[in-house]
Amino acid sequence: MITSASNERIKAIRRLQERKGRLESGLFYLEGLRIVGEALEAGAEVETVVFAAELLRSEFGHTLVEEFSAQGGQVLEVSREVFERLALKDGPQGIAAVVRQHWTGLDEVRVAPGKPWVALDSVADPGNLGTILRTNDSVGGQGVILLDQSTDPYDPSAVRGSMGALFDQKIVRCSLEEFTSWKDSSGAAVVGTSGTAQMDYHEYRYPVGMVLLMGSERQGLQERHLALCDALVRIPMVGKSDSLNLAVATAVTLYEMFNQWRSVGGKP
Amino acid sequence: MITSASNERIKAIRRLQERKGRLESGLFYLEGLRIVGEALEAGAEVETVVFAAELLRSEFGHTLVEEFSAQGGQVLEVSREVFERLALKDGPQGIAAVVRQHWTGLDEVRVAPGKPWVALDSVADPGNLGTILRTNDSVGGQGVILLDQSTDPYDPSAVRGSMGALFDQKIVRCSLEEFTSWKDSSGAAVVGTSGTAQMDYHEYRYPVGMVLLMGSERQGLQERHLALCDALVRIPMVGKSDSLNLAVATAVTLYEMFNQWRSVGGKP
Repeated sequence: MITSASNERIKAIRRLQERKGRLESGLFYLEGLRIVGEALEAGAEVETVVFAAELLRSEFGHTLVEEFSAQGGQVLEVSREVFERLALKDGPQGIAAVVRQHWTGLDEVRVAPGKPWVALDSVADPGNLGTILRTNDSVGGQGVILLDQSTDPYDPSAVRGSMGALFDQKIVRCSLEEFTSWKDSSGAAVVGTSGTAQMDYHEYRYPVGMVLLMGSERQGLQERHLALCDALVRIPMVGKSDSLNLAVATAVTLYEMFNQWRSVGGKP
Repeated sequence: MITSASNERIKAIRRLQERKGRLESGLFYLEGLRIVGEALEAGAEVETVVFAAELLRSEFGHTLVEEFSAQGGQVLEVSREVFERLALKDGPQGIAAVVRQHWTGLDEVRVAPGKPWVALDSVADPGNLGTILRTNDSVGGQGVILLDQSTDPYDPSAVRGSMGALFDQKIVRCSLEEFTSWKDSSGAAVVGTSGTAQMDYHEYRYPVGMVLLMGSERQGLQERHLALCDALVRIPMVGKSDSLNLAVATAVTLYEMFNQWRSVGGKP
């Protein structure tokens, strides 16, 4: 059992809370019974399960640790004090994991009927990114394409916001130039949202295989993005606000697509 | 100019960053050019405008300060160092305001066609609450009713998330018992969302004057809430996730209502 927070392995795990540490190692850190259970169940590449017996009061939690260990997984027992130093929030449940990041190449991206991709330009808030992963999972989407300077999907806030969808959604990162080339060669339809678009998002008929392109929280879609869209739609707003939260705008559009597509198929 | 962070007025303003300080004073703190401008424009009860000349580089910002002062408003000039101590984030714009909270009584709540209210049970995340205020403003809604142990709409994260909608949306807080009595006497329709409801949220026809009732992030609607709903609807999900983010679920339902209502009126 590790009882010192200055242990090298503990220090390495703590570095995963910073983007630099995640970039260098290709790993990320997650914490809590539910999310560790989901990572294991989803078949994520779990490198280490960390636990503190004094904090881990759940039988399910102990079963997770034992099964992972029985399958040859690396288990790290730490003292309560050490776990609390690692923990992202107060009152930790005593279980955490170090997991390998999983990136999908742009060349593996295929549009498919009823299984949308979301491309995000320079998304800044990891909570928004996590929420978008969760919503895209809910409508049967395949994954998210992060363009240019987007935040890290393996940031603790993104992991928390995704509520496990991170393990099922594919995650791609590329430049706008690469995305444009991919669109040209694949012929995929790209639909963007813009406050200045003419077409009402609820009137537009979405192609069944497509990428939804969303701009950043700060600026929305820029000229260079608008130019590559096959269609632009606008979510109407009748109040004082001139924009919606990014995760909300994405969800409202994804559910409109989802409703259209499931109606076409005779459902609901 | 105040140059000491231990000045009593500065300490009183800093206390507004804690819920206790806001409860005791009935005031809240907001920061940044855009939101201070929106507060003044919306006619919010601004008690004090705080600025640091060295940080406030915007001409618009100086105009705000001058106009507020000319109208007899209380202006507090502070040093850069003091402002940075007050500031909620790095790189502050040098302008902030202390504003009186504005609560609406439950007895003033009236349902009206196309102008929904959102009732939230024990919403925990102030960012979610701010985002819901912003979305409800966008669909022409009137305000939010906070039931039981809900988070504070004047928390800095809620203020930020609302993007100014806080000044236009009405905010009510009451117990579930009070809400139930109000519903009985007003005859208002209440529609709830639940993962176990039979009715698809996209199939249901929403009454044009209504309250949308949403459960907490943690538990969703409880038995006692379900019992008072005139209808329950379910947002379908086809992925691994069994729930949506609260602000997302609220937005998806509000936009469905909004789309139905504007279609009825012959638009879009």
